[in-house]
Amino acid sequence: MAAPIITLLTDFGDEDGFVGAVRGVLLSRAPAARLVDLAHHVPTGDVEKAARVLSRAAPCFPPGAVHLVVVDPGVGTERKAVVVEAGGHIFVAPDNGVVTYAVDSLGGVRVAHAITERAYWRPSPSVTFHGRDIFAPVAAALASGTGVAALGPKLATLYRLAAPAPEEAAGVWRGHVIEVDHFGNLITDLPVEVCGGARVRCALGSATLEGPVAAYASVDPGELVLVVGSAGTLEIAVRDGSAARRLGIRSGAPVACHPLAPPRSSKA
Amino acid sequence: MAAPIITLLTDFGDEDGFVGAVRGVLLSRAPAARLVDLAHHVPTGDVEKAARVLSRAAPCFPPGAVHLVVVDPGVGTERKAVVVEAGGHIFVAPDNGVVTYAVDSLGGVRVAHAITERAYWRPSPSVTFHGRDIFAPVAAALASGTGVAALGPKLATLYRLAAPAPEEAAGVWRGHVIEVDHFGNLITDLPVEVCGGARVRCALGSATLEGPVAAYASVDPGELVLVVGSAGTLEIAVRDGSAARRLGIRSGAPVACHPLAPPRSSKA
Amino acid sequence: MAAPIITLLTDFGDEDGFVGAVRGVLLSRAPAARLVDLAHHVPTGDVEKAARVLSRAAPCFPPGAVHLVVVDPGVGTERKAVVVEAGGHIFVAPDNGVVTYAVDSLGGVRVAHAITERAYWRPSPSVTFHGRDIFAPVAAALASGTGVAALGPKLATLYRLAAPAPEEAAGVWRGHVIEVDHFGNLITDLPVEVCGGARVRCALGSATLEGPVAAYASVDPGELVLVVGSAGTLEIAVRDGSAARRLGIRSGAPVACHPLAPPRSSKA
Repeated sequence: MAAPIITLLTDFGDEDGFVGAVRGVLLSRAPAARLVDLAHHVPTGDVEKAARVLSRAAPCFPPGAVHLVVVDPGVGTERKAVVVEAGGHIFVAPDNGVVTYAVDSLGGVRVAHAITERAYWRPSPSVTFHGRDIFAPVAAALASGTGVAALGPKLATLYRLAAPAPEEAAGVWRGHVIEVDHFGNLITDLPVEVCGGARVRCALGSATLEGPVAAYASVDPGELVLVVGSAGTLEIAVRDGSAARRLGIRSGAPVACHPLAPPRSSKA
Repeated sequence: MAAPIITLLTDFGDEDGFVGAVRGVLLSRAPAARLVDLAHHVPTGDVEKAARVLSRAAPCFPPGAVHLVVVDPGVGTERKAVVVEAGGHIFVAPDNGVVTYAVDSLGGVRVAHAITERAYWRPSPSVTFHGRDIFAPVAAALASGTGVAALGPKLATLYRLAAPAPEEAAGVWRGHVIEVDHFGNLITDLPVEVCGGARVRCALGSATLEGPVAAYASVDPGELVLVVGSAGTLEIAVRDGSAARRLGIRSGAPVACHPLAPPRSSKA
Repeated sequence: MAAPIITLLTDFGDEDGFVGAVRGVLLSRAPAARLVDLAHHVPTGDVEKAARVLSRAAPCFPPGAVHLVVVDPGVGTERKAVVVEAGGHIFVAPDNGVVTYAVDSLGGVRVAHAITERAYWRPSPSVTFHGRDIFAPVAAALASGTGVAALGPKLATLYRLAAPAPEEAAGVWRGHVIEVDHFGNLITDLPVEVCGGARVRCALGSATLEGPVAAYASVDPGELVLVVGSAGTLEIAVRDGSAARRLGIRSGAPVACHPLAPPRSSKA
């Protein structure tokens, strides 16, 4: 049997050893586990962004993986800690909605439990570092075969993020930029099917683009380009540059797209 | 038996492949070792910060772990390379004090040796990259079972960092900000016991705070907050923000705290 | 037999989970593989820098390692994806020259194949994320024992980067800064043999330096220093500072060096 996988997603950065401490706890309690990073430079406390990252990466792992998520601005408050099963994957996270999109993409919640059983925690947990003191030892226990039901009472509902869904009116689809990535690409929630197999015209901020085209490099360096991103939604980029900086646009900005009429054949 | 663990702590960043080269040397010479990162974005040459990071993360690992530390502004000079045992952990580092706090927290030095035996180095070591040419092959040898005594002569003393200890006078404890973390939180060296179980008033820079409170989120977003940090010392933060930026405070800044009289009961 | 090693070199950063997705695909398809990072903060689309990083790190690994390189500004265009064998190492990369220097340092190309056999790809690959959809599953297949010839037709030539070689005229060697590293050190392509065992004088930008000296710390903090870098070429640094910032110099800047006459003995 392959060694159990524990993935790590945090906003801890890479300068303080916070992730290092978490890794130490994991390997102390689950010596055979394989630790794999999803990302650690999620913007501080940005649960929406972390939820997108988790949704992008977690489903690429084999079922059975334990995903440890510590983007947790409510650490120390009454927000719950939860363990969630979906599609054979196990998520250990604060109950702040960070698992929403990943769980949706894996077919929805199979079962969820609160993490209340202190026997699985480190003794005398701090109020500021539940990643080390609660989430890590629980993830290690799960990777070592502990069942989710042992961790605490079953939960009927989880906190959910409520991103607005794209809407259509009068042939125009209105959606949003849901992520700005490392490259400054603007990832929208508008599925390529909006295109209907043809071309679309999209407006966001001061820009209007037609596409999608085949690749970032289908346009000249420095030009705006509309492509189908890696999640199947429309994405606005600047070749060899940053669309976010060019357009001054952040996550949440509205985008409007409509299919272009097929070009008339030029017989005239 | 579990595979040997080698942790890595450097100020190399993640853009040049310096850590990659170190990992390659480690796996070439200790093929079974598990490589685990503590942090790689320690500020350049900041031995004090690295020592804090090491102290935070290394003790979370199981005994037997080999901790490779390369924050080494004196590379190529006469500063020694050392191997240090403490609490069952093994540290491989420059003798610049970087192991001070970690070793203290693990019960002190059990034994220390200079790393002088060139048979364990890479041939013709460079003058700028001892991480690759000396520290990594030595760490690999240790992880593969070489004893510390084989590496060079025993050392009676190590270079130590000498952070000033908090001091009390007339009921006021005076300490320092010893770390600014990724979140801009100001970590002090004042143990929560200063509070004596009650509340304290702390002054640093232009701010005066009372606390500690239960969580960062015990105050409104953007407000300053005094909490007990994950090492058990008082910590000043801004909820969903950076206390370092707000107060213009860096590591080393003085902090003064005194216990608050228990509030009189409001019978009047 | 040791588990197969797959190294990862990208410009993906650490905020979006792009590397996380790649790691998930690798472990889904090569469960026994060991994933090792070379670097992920290569400047966006900087193929020349990535080629230098790969050359620095890849040869430190044991032969048999599979090196997955995704610095790929031409993703989605007609640029080929290739697998290249050199010195027992296997490289999976876009055919944009990124393997040039690493392969040269490993004795040159033994064999190269285009990656065209879609059976090894993820189904319906995206146009923006070949790292996840093409390079990762191919690297996993190679790490699991698939031969390079299975992936597509043999290639007679690869795209090569064409860095200008240092040239000598009238006793002066003219070369270039080929990398600026995390520390702001300026790494040149001038081999230390230029020195002829003696000292040299180097000019770049507004600075003239003599050296090399034994270590960065051979000069006072804040001073410019000329050393022999970890690849054996001359390197200009500022002790405890950034030479790139001090001199306002970027990769590509010209450097001129000439041997110094041995100092006359001071008998006069």
